[in-house]
Amino acid sequence: MTMEPLTALDLAAAHPLDDDIRAYFDKCTEKLGLIPNVLQAYAFDQAKLRAFMAMYNDLMLAPSGLSKAEREMIAVAVSAENRCVYCLTAHGAALRQLTGDPILAETIAQNWRAARLDPRQRAMLAFAVKLTRHPQDMAEADRAALRDAGFTDRDIWDISAVAAFYNMSNRLASAVEMLPNPEYHGMAR
Amino acid sequence: MTMEPLTALDLAAAHPLDDDIRAYFDKCTEKLGLIPNVLQAYAFDQAKLRAFMAMYNDLMLAPSGLSKAEREMIAVAVSAENRCVYCLTAHGAALRQLTGDPILAETIAQNWRAARLDPRQRAMLAFAVKLTRHPQDMAEADRAALRDAGFTDRDIWDISAVAAFYNMSNRLASAVEMLPNPEYHGMAR
Amino acid sequence: MTMEPLTALDLAAAHPLDDDIRAYFDKCTEKLGLIPNVLQAYAFDQAKLRAFMAMYNDLMLAPSGLSKAEREMIAVAVSAENRCVYCLTAHGAALRQLTGDPILAETIAQNWRAARLDPRQRAMLAFAVKLTRHPQDMAEADRAALRDAGFTDRDIWDISAVAAFYNMSNRLASAVEMLPNPEYHGMAR
Amino acid sequence: MTMEPLTALDLAAAHPLDDDIRAYFDKCTEKLGLIPNVLQAYAFDQAKLRAFMAMYNDLMLAPSGLSKAEREMIAVAVSAENRCVYCLTAHGAALRQLTGDPILAETIAQNWRAARLDPRQRAMLAFAVKLTRHPQDMAEADRAALRDAGFTDRDIWDISAVAAFYNMSNRLASAVEMLPNPEYHGMAR
Amino acid sequence: MTMEPLTALDLAAAHPLDDDIRAYFDKCTEKLGLIPNVLQAYAFDQAKLRAFMAMYNDLMLAPSGLSKAEREMIAVAVSAENRCVYCLTAHGAALRQLTGDPILAETIAQNWRAARLDPRQRAMLAFAVKLTRHPQDMAEADRAALRDAGFTDRDIWDISAVAAFYNMSNRLASAVEMLPNPEYHGMAR
Amino acid sequence: MTMEPLTALDLAAAHPLDDDIRAYFDKCTEKLGLIPNVLQAYAFDQAKLRAFMAMYNDLMLAPSGLSKAEREMIAVAVSAENRCVYCLTAHGAALRQLTGDPILAETIAQNWRAARLDPRQRAMLAFAVKLTRHPQDMAEADRAALRDAGFTDRDIWDISAVAAFYNMSNRLASAVEMLPNPEYHGMAR
Repeated sequence: MTMEPLTALDLAAAHPLDDDIRAYFDKCTEKLGLIPNVLQAYAFDQAKLRAFMAMYNDLMLAPSGLSKAEREMIAVAVSAENRCVYCLTAHGAALRQLTGDPILAETIAQNWRAARLDPRQRAMLAFAVKLTRHPQDMAEADRAALRDAGFTDRDIWDISAVAAFYNMSNRLASAVEMLPNPEYHGMAR
Repeated sequence: MTMEPLTALDLAAAHPLDDDIRAYFDKCTEKLGLIPNVLQAYAFDQAKLRAFMAMYNDLMLAPSGLSKAEREMIAVAVSAENRCVYCLTAHGAALRQLTGDPILAETIAQNWRAARLDPRQRAMLAFAVKLTRHPQDMAEADRAALRDAGFTDRDIWDISAVAAFYNMSNRLASAVEMLPNPEYHGMAR
Repeated sequence: MTMEPLTALDLAAAHPLDDDIRAYFDKCTEKLGLIPNVLQAYAFDQAKLRAFMAMYNDLMLAPSGLSKAEREMIAVAVSAENRCVYCLTAHGAALRQLTGDPILAETIAQNWRAARLDPRQRAMLAFAVKLTRHPQDMAEADRAALRDAGFTDRDIWDISAVAAFYNMSNRLASAVEMLPNPEYHGMAR
Repeated sequence: MTMEPLTALDLAAAHPLDDDIRAYFDKCTEKLGLIPNVLQAYAFDQAKLRAFMAMYNDLMLAPSGLSKAEREMIAVAVSAENRCVYCLTAHGAALRQLTGDPILAETIAQNWRAARLDPRQRAMLAFAVKLTRHPQDMAEADRAALRDAGFTDRDIWDISAVAAFYNMSNRLASAVEMLPNPEYHGMAR
Repeated sequence: MTMEPLTALDLAAAHPLDDDIRAYFDKCTEKLGLIPNVLQAYAFDQAKLRAFMAMYNDLMLAPSGLSKAEREMIAVAVSAENRCVYCLTAHGAALRQLTGDPILAETIAQNWRAARLDPRQRAMLAFAVKLTRHPQDMAEADRAALRDAGFTDRDIWDISAVAAFYNMSNRLASAVEMLPNPEYHGMAR
Repeated sequence: MTMEPLTALDLAAAHPLDDDIRAYFDKCTEKLGLIPNVLQAYAFDQAKLRAFMAMYNDLMLAPSGLSKAEREMIAVAVSAENRCVYCLTAHGAALRQLTGDPILAETIAQNWRAARLDPRQRAMLAFAVKLTRHPQDMAEADRAALRDAGFTDRDIWDISAVAAFYNMSNRLASAVEMLPNPEYHGMAR
């Protein structure tokens, strides 16, 4: 596996990788045709990588009242607010794939307000984006709007946690100038 | 263990807790005299709790070019920017304890620019706060300023990752209105 | 009276102080155990000091439909918005003392939205903070919200005047990097 | 003296006014041809009015390293930032008068950056406007820029205090929707 | 025709001017007593000048559900938001003339919210100013507010197009530091 | 030619279209395979359409020191700042085509700072984006940075005029919720 420069930092991947990591990377190659650069960037420290993968997999893939596509909508809408090149590219591709509607996905990446979404999804993204822009202004009225749109308290946790997670990973990616794998660009267009 | 309302959401803790979680909570009680509410709030889903604890422990406690006090400085400066009551309270207490200088710690919570810090720490907080406010504007010049202040590329990753992490947890705490344990307020004053 | 550096400016106090000022300073020492640094900082020009004390005493101590604690709530909420170290420290202590509830006071200093306040006080702080952030956007609807919460026109003046005053003193303190007396930190915790 | 509605609040002036206030108002009428509405608005409480007049007169008229025109430049530049109709009108007129250059004065009211000012005055207004917009970001470098432009520490206090004062009065005027005397508009055009 | 420096750029007007342009400039001199500097600034390239004049004349002078004074209100309110010296000066004069109410016009230039406008005009300016500040947040609710105030879809286009146009010309004028003709200042005061 | 809803406004195209407009639309269909929706949206008033086309064609296609690709870079970077779905879609496609580098084009649409650009182009986009965000803060130093990067005064005009133009068309498109032609999405990927 050649390691092209993944970020603006000079941090070499652990070598050799531990078996569990190697297996996970192999599974990525098999399923996605690539190892996401964020994982390779984290590979200089496998404890950090494992913690990141555990949180990511729980938030994006574990059972939830939010569909996987809805979670990717949050990822993309938050990343658009923060103008994160890595996450817009990787999650933009995932959202195109999961929705099967590349124009809808692209519109969310450009400005979610103009996307043809149902009221539930608009409420979800309005909450996620307010939380991104103005976390200090969150109030009971914001949670009430989610409940009015049909979300449970557990769903509110999940919306909050996914939006919060991308506020983290957007910032890490932007801080180190993480480059997205070029393959994402053409996927599911 | 009585469970007072921890957040604005109605999410009951798993019962009984798994052994590893129970043991960790016991260790908290023993060492801190309390179980941080953030952990109790997460306890409705122990997989989420474990992922959070793993990332937290790696970032804040694992070996790093940043001292534990420096990592808490970032936690507090970022949380001040986001006006997060939970994190300012919990990490404010930790920073008072780790620095042994409660006024310095409080000043960082109020406005880090006015704190008596050395140039290395000022550079670190300037980077963390810019990343918090304007992630879309990060550029090579920002990393160069850290290198000029003596930080390695690995340190830059750690500064970025800690700042990014609190941008996540500030938002999760604010979204669900997480209440800090009242005991923090008087600690190490 | 030793005069430690009070601000980043080199401005020596008048010497000797006039009798009325000396008497006022003595009363401060007797009642508070300290002479607030803001008064000492102004002492390079006693005419300025007298004008400041007159306005301060009128706004914060004269009869008003707002209690003294409510006026300190405004002081703290505005100072938090402007991140003023001097005012957060001095008025944070005053608010802890006047409310007898140090955690409530601290929460207002961190983010008033998360504090357990009654609707009248929330309306008051919402007005004061909007006036701080966006003075150009104040409109009849903002005054109407105060009237709906039970405030008279005279109360609206007082809320406005107190919020406006701390937008002044926050800026003066920040411009000259005024240091708070260290004694404030531990008071009424 | 007829009292037209001066603000959006219904607060009647004290009646009769005390002798010192009446004398001051008479002097205003004699010298300016009007009693500034801000003074009439304050006249519902003569203690508040006296405190305001004392601070105003000290800041704008007492001896200072800043000329009266320079102090009015700060008043106008700050009021423009806060979009305060009352202060832009009243101090716009004063600045036209004091500079004898109505176009220069108007340009400062529109956008001080485009005004033909000398480097000293540009430094002064840059400081005042940063203090207005971002008080939390003031730092030693900002004071150093004033010193480089030839200002003493006492001058820095005065620049700060005048800018801070208009951040107060802009907010009070906007909060109560204070109307400027119509006569100001045509003065010194 | 002497050409004083019109902008911070050194761009000489075409010489001689084409007949249509010369005729237009002559008409300006005849009707306004001046050739607006924006036209002279564009005269270095007559194709650009013609395109600008065509769009300007269509937007501001062609038949519309908005009166000419209303279109100038938008011009002034948008230019105030962007603090554009050229446009505030030239369109401020036009608005004083068209309304015959110099104080109303000046108040719109200072802060439209404080101007005595009818509900229709307030809705129009609220839309124009939101479009100026936060174009990314425009939504159906904003158009609905205009329809509620009595505007047709064609009117909404015109409000949008005029507000958008001044967001262009404000920026061009500010980018090149375009100087307004000094004659504007005293007109229709 | 079927006319699907192009915007949120109900404005029917002129019928029949004048010959010059029909010919232009035919040329678009022939060259691009579509008639850009912005032109169809304007077709309710052919005078407005002609003025728009004239300005657009002059700015984007006439001879200039900026290449066509550079002008599209400005279009895309400005539209990204304003989050304009229509312009990001249409000019994103144009930029992919003109650069022959779809990933570079996409990166500029996401966040130009992360794009691999030469110093001249970075200076150009830094100027255009500052002009978009903060027109009131433009100063001689901004023009000097362009001259240092090798731009002439005429180039500075063109950079300013193109950036300003998209601040107009972004706002018009967002105000009326203009829908981009779906064909753009897949072009030149």
